[in-house]
Amino acid sequence: MFEYRRRVAFHEVDAAGIVFFPWFHVYLHEAMDALFCGLEGGYPRLINERRIGLPAVRLVSDFRAPLRYGEGVVVRVHVTRVGERSLGLRYVFFRDGGEEVAAFEQVVVATDLGRMCSVPLPEDVRRAAEAHLA
Amino acid sequence: MFEYRRRVAFHEVDAAGIVFFPWFHVYLHEAMDALFCGLEGGYPRLINERRIGLPAVRLVSDFRAPLRYGEGVVVRVHVTRVGERSLGLRYVFFRDGGEEVAAFEQVVVATDLGRMCSVPLPEDVRRAAEAHLA
Amino acid sequence: MFEYRRRVAFHEVDAAGIVFFPWFHVYLHEAMDALFCGLEGGYPRLINERRIGLPAVRLVSDFRAPLRYGEGVVVRVHVTRVGERSLGLRYVFFRDGGEEVAAFEQVVVATDLGRMCSVPLPEDVRRAAEAHLA
Amino acid sequence: MFEYRRRVAFHEVDAAGIVFFPWFHVYLHEAMDALFCGLEGGYPRLINERRIGLPAVRLVSDFRAPLRYGEGVVVRVHVTRVGERSLGLRYVFFRDGGEEVAAFEQVVVATDLGRMCSVPLPEDVRRAAEAHLA
Repeated sequence: MFEYRRRVAFHEVDAAGIVFFPWFHVYLHEAMDALFCGLEGGYPRLINERRIGLPAVRLVSDFRAPLRYGEGVVVRVHVTRVGERSLGLRYVFFRDGGEEVAAFEQVVVATDLGRMCSVPLPEDVRRAAEAHLA
Repeated sequence: MFEYRRRVAFHEVDAAGIVFFPWFHVYLHEAMDALFCGLEGGYPRLINERRIGLPAVRLVSDFRAPLRYGEGVVVRVHVTRVGERSLGLRYVFFRDGGEEVAAFEQVVVATDLGRMCSVPLPEDVRRAAEAHLA
Repeated sequence: MFEYRRRVAFHEVDAAGIVFFPWFHVYLHEAMDALFCGLEGGYPRLINERRIGLPAVRLVSDFRAPLRYGEGVVVRVHVTRVGERSLGLRYVFFRDGGEEVAAFEQVVVATDLGRMCSVPLPEDVRRAAEAHLA
Repeated sequence: MFEYRRRVAFHEVDAAGIVFFPWFHVYLHEAMDALFCGLEGGYPRLINERRIGLPAVRLVSDFRAPLRYGEGVVVRVHVTRVGERSLGLRYVFFRDGGEEVAAFEQVVVATDLGRMCSVPLPEDVRRAAEAHLA
């Protein structure tokens, strides 16, 4: 399990006064990015130099409670499956010190960003993922 | 069926060079907003004055192909269910003149934005949704 | 003079209930993009294939009145200067059918996106800019 | 002087491969928000409960060098003027451990978010600003 924390920013709230739901997806992407911080150069080097990404192909989102500007969010990330070319991830969001507010099941596929086709998971990505296997 | 069109903007692309997946969710929200343009004052008046929103409680996303800056996107929206307090929606995204790139199943719940609790679908919202029932 | 119109989207409003000011900058960038729609392949091809961009080096912003979700915005763009490698642009924003809400003075520099250094304005970009010279 | 640090996120990069300039404005707003963290409940309570905001009325932006995904940014904030109802702020951005990449001069006005009119700076906001007066 990997934990990522952040605070809801001023601009992440919409005309309804609560966090606009696609920002939850930004938060979970930040959590995945942080989960790979142990790679040499982290997720940025994987993208910028090695040109391998992990785009989502499936994402199931359950939103249970709204978040407001200034609230703290705790994201708990579990790797649920390590495949040949793909990963399953589960993200559970909690209000800081409080209840579950959302949960997400995601499948991402290792992708050569030049040719835009799937590739086997790089060895270091696989090892980083396995370290957080549920 | 309701159709919404837009073009991928310059800033909707990420470090991998393709549309960042939460922008697909922004597009589908824009499509839902447009679907309700027949309400008096549209979705903006529902939110700003009547203070009733339709936040998502569940969203299943399937991403099949990447989009790039400048490409046209066609979003076809079907209402799949009209409940007492909730709606089911299905969005299918096509590259303009081309293949399906993503599909989404969403459940939204009519919500009093002041008290943040569910309410029956307003009569005009129900009628607008029924007009696009699959 | 070139005119660009759009509507304030649901997610462009912040916790204060008005358009978050960086969105005004997104709008003006969209207006500049639209101004160059007459180039072959438009601004997207300039960026994606020719790999020449027009990043801002200076931007002076005056915000006079707030905008809210659902309001229409009219952006009037004037090219104020066509240099060897740079352009001056002036954007004035109006509430649809109403008063001026913001004004911007911008300098952009033609930039080779591979080497990240300035280059002479491409001939077609220069011509498109001159067509809107104040 | 107040210092705020953050890292360029995956989605803050545009089709040109560098940080989209309005994100610099998001960063500086985050820096201002952090500068007021000593208020009771911070900037969020000022906005959400006291309903007083500090919208920008003028912003002069100088962009000197691009930023890329994954780079660290250091924002140094100086309060340059404390008026009756307004503040002057200066933000200088540095690449982490490196050169200046951008600088901003901003004027913000204390605003009653209900009536959308200017108000005198609240006493605690004035004191927090004065603590960082250049």
